[in-house]
Amino acid sequence: MAERLCPRFEDAFELLGKRWTGMIIKVLLSGPKRFKDISDVIPNMSDRMLSERFKELETAGIIIRHVYPETPVRIEYELTDKGKDLEGSMNEVQKWAEKWCLDIPNS
Amino acid sequence: MAERLCPRFEDAFELLGKRWTGMIIKVLLSGPKRFKDISDVIPNMSDRMLSERFKELETAGIIIRHVYPETPVRIEYELTDKGKDLEGSMNEVQKWAEKWCLDIPNS
Repeated sequence: MAERLCPRFEDAFELLGKRWTGMIIKVLLSGPKRFKDISDVIPNMSDRMLSERFKELETAGIIIRHVYPETPVRIEYELTDKGKDLEGSMNEVQKWAEKWCLDIPNS
Repeated sequence: MAERLCPRFEDAFELLGKRWTGMIIKVLLSGPKRFKDISDVIPNMSDRMLSERFKELETAGIIIRHVYPETPVRIEYELTDKGKDLEGSMNEVQKWAEKWCLDIPNS
C-alpha cells in the first residue's frame, strides 16, 4: 500500500526548507551571480548566513562556484543542472504556499 | 530582481521536510486512515513519532481527525483540502529526488 519514496525525498525537503535557501535558488534561476548580487536582493540575510548556505548548496551539488582569475578576482555562483531542475518543485510549493498562506496558523 | 516569495514558502518546505511527514501524507492521499493503517505501512516509525506528526499536521491544517462514537470508538485521519492540494508539490519533489538521488553526497 505504501508507495516507495526515494530515501532522499525528505532530505530534499529539509534542504529546501532552510531559511533563505529557496530565495537564493530563485535568484540564481535567472543566471550566475556574484555574492553581492544576491546579498543585495535579500537585505535581511547576513553575509555569514549567505556563505553558509552557499557551502551547503555546493556540498549538495546544487550550485557550483566559479573563480575567474582576473584582477580583482571574480567569483560567481551558478546552479548546476541538478539545481536548475529544482524549478518545478519550487514553483509547485510556492503555488501551494501562496494559495494556503493565510491558512497556516502562527506558532 | 528578487521575485516575491510567500513568507510561508520556507515554512512549507520545513514542515514537509520532517522525517516521515512526506510518507504519512502519501499514505493519506489514498483516503482516510486509522492510526494502525499508517503505522503498519511505515514499520520503522514509532507510534510516539506518528502521534507527534499527526499533531503537527493537524495544527498546520493539513489533516483532520474524525472521532466516530462507536463501540469501540473509531478514530480516523483525513487530509483536508489544503492537505490534498499538496499532491502536486510532493510529486515534483519526489521526481526531482529520484532523478538526482544518487547524486546527493552523504553527510
